[in-house]
Amino acid sequence: MFKKFKIPDATIGRLSMYSRYLSEADEKGITTVSSQDIAQATGVTPAQVRKDLAYFGEFGTRGVGYNSRELYTYIMKILGLDKRWSIAIVGAGNLGRALSKYKGFQQRGFDIVCIFDNDPKKIGKKLANINIYPLDQLEEKVKELKIDLGIIAVPASAAQEVADMLVGAGIRGIINFAPINVTVKENIILRRVDLAAQLEYLTYYLEETR
Amino acid sequence: MFKKFKIPDATIGRLSMYSRYLSEADEKGITTVSSQDIAQATGVTPAQVRKDLAYFGEFGTRGVGYNSRELYTYIMKILGLDKRWSIAIVGAGNLGRALSKYKGFQQRGFDIVCIFDNDPKKIGKKLANINIYPLDQLEEKVKELKIDLGIIAVPASAAQEVADMLVGAGIRGIINFAPINVTVKENIILRRVDLAAQLEYLTYYLEETR
Repeated sequence: MFKKFKIPDATIGRLSMYSRYLSEADEKGITTVSSQDIAQATGVTPAQVRKDLAYFGEFGTRGVGYNSRELYTYIMKILGLDKRWSIAIVGAGNLGRALSKYKGFQQRGFDIVCIFDNDPKKIGKKLANINIYPLDQLEEKVKELKIDLGIIAVPASAAQEVADMLVGAGIRGIINFAPINVTVKENIILRRVDLAAQLEYLTYYLEETR
Repeated sequence: MFKKFKIPDATIGRLSMYSRYLSEADEKGITTVSSQDIAQATGVTPAQVRKDLAYFGEFGTRGVGYNSRELYTYIMKILGLDKRWSIAIVGAGNLGRALSKYKGFQQRGFDIVCIFDNDPKKIGKKLANINIYPLDQLEEKVKELKIDLGIIAVPASAAQEVADMLVGAGIRGIINFAPINVTVKENIILRRVDLAAQLEYLTYYLEETR
């Protein structure tokens, strides 16, 4: 669509942050923002803001700034968030339960549509009003409910098998929360969220400044 | 300790991954690994592995590779993981519950020591054998139990207040899981884990390759 070359991962993460700030600014009736405003609200430098946006074209008016709503709309389009996405969570344990109730998803266009588990005590019940289906119906339900993305929230020992099932069902984007690496074929987008690794950023910096 | 200049955040994240692979290699009795081996196991390029390690000194023997256990030990030291860290979770809701039971923490040296909540129905109970204390005992317990790090797992509306309490109690490193930005004074290390933003990496790439 827009991109001709590889955009750094960190830029994508920052675009997410910028879009949240722009949405807030727009809601507050702030029609124009500077790269300085965006930078201050998101904890980066103004030069970084300009560099991140420059990957995607020319925005704003020199000496004036950016139109909040226009830039918001454009970034949301870059992030693929000009449409809603349907998500399946695999694993109705503590993490699956937490994710199914997480308030931050819906407001960004993510709908948790169904949950899968292999525990007979959970199957047929609901979590946050979302149906829990047996794992062996994954392929059928993913197709029927037109699921776009899968979230792996099962123990490490089951993670690779679940990843294979999601890919087999035609899912092209997966987030893995299990504390283990899983592999998928090349055309599938897989992202691992390693909760312990998040803590290791803290300990690294605390160690450094000790 | 080691660092004379600013190391990219992404390097820290990759060191985490490398150390996991090195630990596995060492357990399997693989005493020597190449940058190619590390790269392949963690999904980066060999040049990236060498660049990341070069920030911290010279490692390995040209044409031979790295000693798995030595490099593992060294990276763990860089990450501040040559000691154990004590953690408090604030919020005994779904996310706090999931985090208190998350298997990936202990094996990396993180001990969840206590949980705080303001719900009388939860206070005095245990989650995964960890005591839930009232929020107004936070400062006292953080000091008594020598807590190093805090995890914010409360609703967005309470996140800033909790961050202030943690900082007030002397905590220097915080992970915020609430879907909102919180601010802390400069010498505190704060990291936000935005679960929706994780999904936005997927949608960005899926949109790009559509």
